Amino acid sequence: MSIVTELRNFQDWFNQQIDSAFAQIDDQVANELHQAMRYSVSNGGKRIRPFLMYTVGRMLNIEDKTMLPAALALECIHSYSLVHDDLPAMDDDELRRGKPTCHIQFNEATAILAGDSLQTLAFELIANANVSAEIKVAWMKELSKHSGYLGMCGGQALDLAGENRQLTVSELENIHLLKTAALLKAAVNMATACSPNIDETSKTKLDEFAGLIGLAFQIQDDILDVTSTTEMLGKPQGSDEKLNKSTYPGILGLESAIEKANQVFQNALEQLDNLPYNTQALFEFAQFIVQRKH
Amino acid sequence: MSIVTELRNFQDWFNQQIDSAFAQIDDQVANELHQAMRYSVSNGGKRIRPFLMYTVGRMLNIEDKTMLPAALALECIHSYSLVHDDLPAMDDDELRRGKPTCHIQFNEATAILAGDSLQTLAFELIANANVSAEIKVAWMKELSKHSGYLGMCGGQALDLAGENRQLTVSELENIHLLKTAALLKAAVNMATACSPNIDETSKTKLDEFAGLIGLAFQIQDDILDVTSTTEMLGKPQGSDEKLNKSTYPGILGLESAIEKANQVFQNALEQLDNLPYNTQALFEFAQFIVQRKH
Repeated sequence: MSIVTELRNFQDWFNQQIDSAFAQIDDQVANELHQAMRYSVSNGGKRIRPFLMYTVGRMLNIEDKTMLPAALALECIHSYSLVHDDLPAMDDDELRRGKPTCHIQFNEATAILAGDSLQTLAFELIANANVSAEIKVAWMKELSKHSGYLGMCGGQALDLAGENRQLTVSELENIHLLKTAALLKAAVNMATACSPNIDETSKTKLDEFAGLIGLAFQIQDDILDVTSTTEMLGKPQGSDEKLNKSTYPGILGLESAIEKANQVFQNALEQLDNLPYNTQALFEFAQFIVQRKH
Repeated sequence: MSIVTELRNFQDWFNQQIDSAFAQIDDQVANELHQAMRYSVSNGGKRIRPFLMYTVGRMLNIEDKTMLPAALALECIHSYSLVHDDLPAMDDDELRRGKPTCHIQFNEATAILAGDSLQTLAFELIANANVSAEIKVAWMKELSKHSGYLGMCGGQALDLAGENRQLTVSELENIHLLKTAALLKAAVNMATACSPNIDETSKTKLDEFAGLIGLAFQIQDDILDVTSTTEMLGKPQGSDEKLNKSTYPGILGLESAIEKANQVFQNALEQLDNLPYNTQALFEFAQFIVQRKH
């Protein structure tokens, strides 16, 4: 089965799991907030982070159901970050995956609260998972470390501060390592945290792999923002330029940006060398990240 | 020592603990975000939630240092909720405790991100605490349950949805139980979670006590919004009326609102009857809540 088919199957299954999770939360407590949270998580995302977690977990023989709460938590964190990033005070986007963003569909206050409660839900899902307390704590550690000030939020702050001025490649790289790569590291590390036997070297290599894939993902995102269409992307094409954001193609030129993406991809693959596991699925995952068209 | 002196001493000590906690977080990752987070938590709050946690914990002979990460986490959650509540799309407040609110002092995007990363920091502090994994999980469960959709965030959503229309007393009560009482329940339950011996009846009574105190606190807040001054409150007096918010004095009249506060206070005290602990400090805490002037 090709990785594209596998990802599509995973998305179908995972979307059902999101539906079940929300069906278990009383929608009568604050109905509009419930709708806004569900809308934001169900909004047709690529589910890259949970898929990466499952890809690593399956390679390590972790059962699918063990990983589910952590995978849902990852997606809640990712979704909340998109809801807040789209707000007028941040990137001011009206379209996300071809649909109205949360504050357009509902209103700004509801979008702020939906993001807030999706973040809380992530940690609640972990707290209530059917795994050992030690695994829950490891998940909580990874997720909080990589999504907060020292990870995703810090990256978004630097990204906003970098608008309207030309960044160096290393500044841009730092932003993407925090803003995007950190949560992919969380995905990988939340999978390895379930494995009782994995050695430290393998853990470190997989963590590095995730970071490099995150970087490649972001460079590819920048490239697609220049070369793709609004229809393909499901969000306005050229929005980086509109916001005067520094991008790899903007700093390096398109050709060198493509070269850079390939080089980071190769570095990622090197991390998989000599791992005592069948890394074919991770190889295909990495390939998919740099070759995707939207 | 009077409870007022005790609270003041606690505030001084706790503010130092906040400073130490932030001094341990690298402020060079995203300097402005770090400043905004620190500004928002250091902004002279009353520290009621951590103080309640410590009051219960000391009654149960829990060591102060055991509770610190949970108390800091509680205050991070409370602070993030204030930062987001003050945003233009929410309550649109420019003053908080006599100082510019976070989005006025910095900017709106930074305030959104500061709130987001303070929430994350709460769970990170718990994850890295020096207690057993079981206690960490119990803390995470209490904090996420009471601060998210089924607690504080849900209450804020209902509060916003209730603006510009007359609520019933029971609707208003529901809002305050979620918006304010829930986090006080978390404070109490995070203390009892540290006690290996406490029985379920005592736990339930203390949980109820917290809920009732939360309600009394909020009724008193509504009363002070009518009877106090901007200078005393450190925020604009009469702001509930300005926002067309339903309040206890608004629905019941001032006299009946004061009566209601007293009645809820008495109900709270009843929960302390027959507890196998010295509940004097909790009694004084409850009294302080309904007699405070700001």
